[in-house]
Amino acid sequence: MTVESNLVADRYLGPDAAQRSVARDIYEGVAGLPIISPHGHVDPRLLADPEATFGTPAELFLIPDHYILRMLHSQGVALEALGVRPRNGGSAGAEVQVDHRRAWQLFADNIFLFRATPSGMWLADELRTVFGIDEPLSSENAGAVYDAVSEKLSRPEFRPRALFERFGIETLCTTDDAADSLQAHRAMRESGWSGDVRPTFRPDGVVNVLATGWRDSINTLSAVVGRDITRTSALVSALEERRAFFTSMGAVATDHAAETAYVESLGEAEADAIMTRALKGQATADDARRFGGHMLMELARMSVEDGLVMQIHVGSLRDHSPAFFERFGANMGADIPIASEFTRNLRPLLERFGNDASLRLILFTLDETTYARELAPLAGYYPALRIGPPWWFHDSLNGMSRYLDQVIETAGLYNTSGFNDDTRAFCSIPIRHDVWRRASSNWLAGLVLRGIVSRSDAHTMAHEMAYDLAKRAYRL
Amino acid sequence: MTVESNLVADRYLGPDAAQRSVARDIYEGVAGLPIISPHGHVDPRLLADPEATFGTPAELFLIPDHYILRMLHSQGVALEALGVRPRNGGSAGAEVQVDHRRAWQLFADNIFLFRATPSGMWLADELRTVFGIDEPLSSENAGAVYDAVSEKLSRPEFRPRALFERFGIETLCTTDDAADSLQAHRAMRESGWSGDVRPTFRPDGVVNVLATGWRDSINTLSAVVGRDITRTSALVSALEERRAFFTSMGAVATDHAAETAYVESLGEAEADAIMTRALKGQATADDARRFGGHMLMELARMSVEDGLVMQIHVGSLRDHSPAFFERFGANMGADIPIASEFTRNLRPLLERFGNDASLRLILFTLDETTYARELAPLAGYYPALRIGPPWWFHDSLNGMSRYLDQVIETAGLYNTSGFNDDTRAFCSIPIRHDVWRRASSNWLAGLVLRGIVSRSDAHTMAHEMAYDLAKRAYRL
Amino acid sequence: MTVESNLVADRYLGPDAAQRSVARDIYEGVAGLPIISPHGHVDPRLLADPEATFGTPAELFLIPDHYILRMLHSQGVALEALGVRPRNGGSAGAEVQVDHRRAWQLFADNIFLFRATPSGMWLADELRTVFGIDEPLSSENAGAVYDAVSEKLSRPEFRPRALFERFGIETLCTTDDAADSLQAHRAMRESGWSGDVRPTFRPDGVVNVLATGWRDSINTLSAVVGRDITRTSALVSALEERRAFFTSMGAVATDHAAETAYVESLGEAEADAIMTRALKGQATADDARRFGGHMLMELARMSVEDGLVMQIHVGSLRDHSPAFFERFGANMGADIPIASEFTRNLRPLLERFGNDASLRLILFTLDETTYARELAPLAGYYPALRIGPPWWFHDSLNGMSRYLDQVIETAGLYNTSGFNDDTRAFCSIPIRHDVWRRASSNWLAGLVLRGIVSRSDAHTMAHEMAYDLAKRAYRL
Repeated sequence: MTVESNLVADRYLGPDAAQRSVARDIYEGVAGLPIISPHGHVDPRLLADPEATFGTPAELFLIPDHYILRMLHSQGVALEALGVRPRNGGSAGAEVQVDHRRAWQLFADNIFLFRATPSGMWLADELRTVFGIDEPLSSENAGAVYDAVSEKLSRPEFRPRALFERFGIETLCTTDDAADSLQAHRAMRESGWSGDVRPTFRPDGVVNVLATGWRDSINTLSAVVGRDITRTSALVSALEERRAFFTSMGAVATDHAAETAYVESLGEAEADAIMTRALKGQATADDARRFGGHMLMELARMSVEDGLVMQIHVGSLRDHSPAFFERFGANMGADIPIASEFTRNLRPLLERFGNDASLRLILFTLDETTYARELAPLAGYYPALRIGPPWWFHDSLNGMSRYLDQVIETAGLYNTSGFNDDTRAFCSIPIRHDVWRRASSNWLAGLVLRGIVSRSDAHTMAHEMAYDLAKRAYRL
Repeated sequence: MTVESNLVADRYLGPDAAQRSVARDIYEGVAGLPIISPHGHVDPRLLADPEATFGTPAELFLIPDHYILRMLHSQGVALEALGVRPRNGGSAGAEVQVDHRRAWQLFADNIFLFRATPSGMWLADELRTVFGIDEPLSSENAGAVYDAVSEKLSRPEFRPRALFERFGIETLCTTDDAADSLQAHRAMRESGWSGDVRPTFRPDGVVNVLATGWRDSINTLSAVVGRDITRTSALVSALEERRAFFTSMGAVATDHAAETAYVESLGEAEADAIMTRALKGQATADDARRFGGHMLMELARMSVEDGLVMQIHVGSLRDHSPAFFERFGANMGADIPIASEFTRNLRPLLERFGNDASLRLILFTLDETTYARELAPLAGYYPALRIGPPWWFHDSLNGMSRYLDQVIETAGLYNTSGFNDDTRAFCSIPIRHDVWRRASSNWLAGLVLRGIVSRSDAHTMAHEMAYDLAKRAYRL
Repeated sequence: MTVESNLVADRYLGPDAAQRSVARDIYEGVAGLPIISPHGHVDPRLLADPEATFGTPAELFLIPDHYILRMLHSQGVALEALGVRPRNGGSAGAEVQVDHRRAWQLFADNIFLFRATPSGMWLADELRTVFGIDEPLSSENAGAVYDAVSEKLSRPEFRPRALFERFGIETLCTTDDAADSLQAHRAMRESGWSGDVRPTFRPDGVVNVLATGWRDSINTLSAVVGRDITRTSALVSALEERRAFFTSMGAVATDHAAETAYVESLGEAEADAIMTRALKGQATADDARRFGGHMLMELARMSVEDGLVMQIHVGSLRDHSPAFFERFGANMGADIPIASEFTRNLRPLLERFGNDASLRLILFTLDETTYARELAPLAGYYPALRIGPPWWFHDSLNGMSRYLDQVIETAGLYNTSGFNDDTRAFCSIPIRHDVWRRASSNWLAGLVLRGIVSRSDAHTMAHEMAYDLAKRAYRL
């Protein structure tokens, strides 16, 4: 092999030759393991319809990817020129590029912006390992790459179900609204397809009284459960009912996004007073914080009772730019992290349920300062707690390195929960797991060479990190 | 030597061959230096009685070690099954395992939980270097290891005083309550034994008005000084009197745990009003914070006057789980760090005493974000300040690496205070100092190979880090 | 070459041989590039007068360097003994050492304090590369080094303008008070000298109503613009007028120091009420915070209009020790960082101007926890934002490593702004840029060896980091 091809084969391993050699050996033991994807945002309709396709290369790689859109926006590229359609249909401002080959060219012209970023690494790996395109994307080859990917995407073996199997996905969990009919999941089951795809119960839309469209979400949930939801007890029982339905459809977990980890048990009267204000459109930020904290307590209680694994994702201030939200909507790259606190905020919940292993609570943070200071000490004590993998901006090579460096010594490996890809970008699933497996192997090789773990233990730990921890953490 | 034995000999050094070679050379220059242990929690009675022993292997390694207990608890192992006796005698819940060999087996069955943790490293090193057991502890060899350690512990050369000498401990400081009679220290001195063991003055129990048993602690202190303590001035003079006694018994330092670094000088009337409320059991959290801050100011003034080195340990929220505290008491692994602040909180104290080198104030943090942001800049300016070594969860290989990376450039090495083992686990003392010496040597080798310090300077710095800095910082 | 000289030639590159080899190759491609110094504190009078000299070695290296003074102070060395003159002329306390050769000896006697610090590295590099003195400064050679440096400083080729040219400085920006006449800049221009030296508009003295001497600064500004400034609108128009003047004198940027990133648009009445209180000497801390936040909004608006690049430096609590400030004044080493917040604080400004690329706002932080959590996500979204280089205490080898590790993956390289030396120490300019170029090359080599970027891309990125990014960020 040439030096360059060695670099590709050993990519993401550290430069030290001795460590790299051990890392490669560890990696080879886990590179081909099935993928457990217990948290993500793949649209289940892609897998419900055997004939579904990914559309154009721009629709696969560019238009739905908030990591890529934000970076291009930050350097002055108009999203419309990339083929993104504003919510209002593009009545004002730039014209929407409908020629996706031209949108792709614009993307390729700016590909240098992604140097040394996860997006750049994922794209290169996807083109290489999924589509067989070894040459890095550039202005010069943009059209040819577009055409080659287009051609592949038109083939049956590049349909979602075919790739699901080729990627070796053992289990894939989607994320679904509390009121969702799970029609796509039902269709999958009824189609006789063997893929293990499970819904995840995410009630943020009805739990956060200041969420956009909260009133509509409540109405939808009311309609689904067949009764009005005007009091907290009705909301709670509706959620319980929906959880039972999700469980019957294979769900193993719930998911909750919260700006902070604040929890509090409100009395019924107080909770209902907030609900009443919210229904009148008069809820304050403090109402939202307290009601959300109250619901987290209720949801933890439900998890103790029904065994659904509870996930809390903390610390994203959503839609930082109102103008951008107005034009393009949510999840387009303008969510910005804030500092988080767990030790005091979560204490009421942990006092009540933390020593009870029938609760399984997985915590995710965007504030890395909490890894060593709060999350690892908490998870290293409370039986109910596990720490989720490096999340979002930290799902990166350096993010993984910081996570392993700061979490494991205090929490221990066995209080973590393996890897989540957390993606809606289907073709990035095997790539993201591969980055994690490489990063894990490299970290473990460092432990071996420092005499901290034996080589045999390192192989065991790599297997845990690639497969077992996630499977056990999510009770699969 | 085999590859494996090389890994053991060079353990904790980095994988790069050139750096490792320099690191080994530096390490060899300090590996055998005497141990200065200026801050720790060894029970002085172990050394007061020449016939004292460590008990069973479980009593030595398992039952008193909160690092180990918390990790086992986090994975659902009942502490009682490990031989831990609840405070209430175990009336409810699991039965206490009194067969320590079976408790040890349970520990060994779960030893995988400690992979890549400091506890796992310390245990392996203690078994190897103190007890001559090279094979890692496992389910399979648990009984044999137990028996081998038991046999050794029964020998005279494994009694605490014998190990004190074998370990090369030059000075050991214990931590003692303000009202302590220091009877064990007196007995040591009177026994004619040459070991240098010194008490440390820790008045937390009477300074924190919300501490468990504060009223009893005040009463005990009153009894010891022979006068009622109902006003702040009486508390202050009692503390001054006890400091003088501790000094006469060899103490060189005081120690103070505080949730935050807040300090404030209260007027006498205000301080007394809080004291009065506290005596009635009516003190608030704010009272405790302000009174504690006031006492830190008073204690700093006393240090200026009597020359005792002042240590402040900031940022642990003690006894996070009330149910666990109720059952097992304090210091059992359920203390969780919180974010800390020094720049503003400590300012009143530093305004008054910070430029006066007759105060020696050593700061410890559990919030690593304060290393580069606050502690290093403060210690790099104020003559009174030194930064304590990486503490508690951060007394680990990665913790040391982060500390050296983030502290030294701004504070300089000479505003740090060497290493503390901070342990009650006697056999871990030489191990923890050895980890520090290896980590220091590895860090210094990295500086040499980057051309930042000369090899000769690196040897000098390693000696400082292993020995001199601690000795000077604590005015020994 | 000997091992030692190799270490010097490859200094600051990592120890791995393969990475070092690639790093050296990358470094060689940028080592000799011209220096863009868009933010710093060089006194323009040094360059205005062709005959200006640097004075004695103590005046060059020691007396004006707050990094060095703070460290010596922290270890009990009196500043007066180093030749520093107190503001009150030294009426009380230690006598001022007027023999600079003896001050230098004292500095050299304490040079060990600077081991492994940026100050130590800069000094060694300056002596070696600027003055040709290879032997490290020591007690023993202090006098000889002093004499050798003195002799060089007396030569024409060591005058500021000569060194400016020898250092290859393409552009140097100074920092200047809003009311400054820019006489030195004018003199430079009129002298026909070709050096590109530009002023930077820094109005902190009139914007921060609690700044020392605020009233005097307002009076001075009033005098300069020829009208009384008693209302906010008058202050705003005065600033606009001065910005126009600075622009006419070549300024490309403004600079703003703020304790926090708080911004807020006050109504005119409210702003004027604060101004009125301030003029009466009755402004509160909250007044200062809000008025300062209001002025940042106004200054951002002005930048949108006049195109001056806006720099905000956040998070230094100035003059932490009042006694020290009283004796020696500002900028003497007693400024201490505090935790910072950008996501919420800056939001009003970013809502208004953040998506507008005609604003160029460069943010600097002393709180590294904000790199990955706030600054990189913000700059990776908002077209108006760029992240400044590692600042002050973090302008160090480890600081750069942490910065690159935590910023680039999320912000991308192209949302950073290259390097600033931010120094008043003229001879350290090429050294600091060299450290950055070496650190960049080493980081890039790591990316190459991990297969993350190609070698060709690494060369391009190194060039950007050394030169282009700064030039474009500052619209030069």
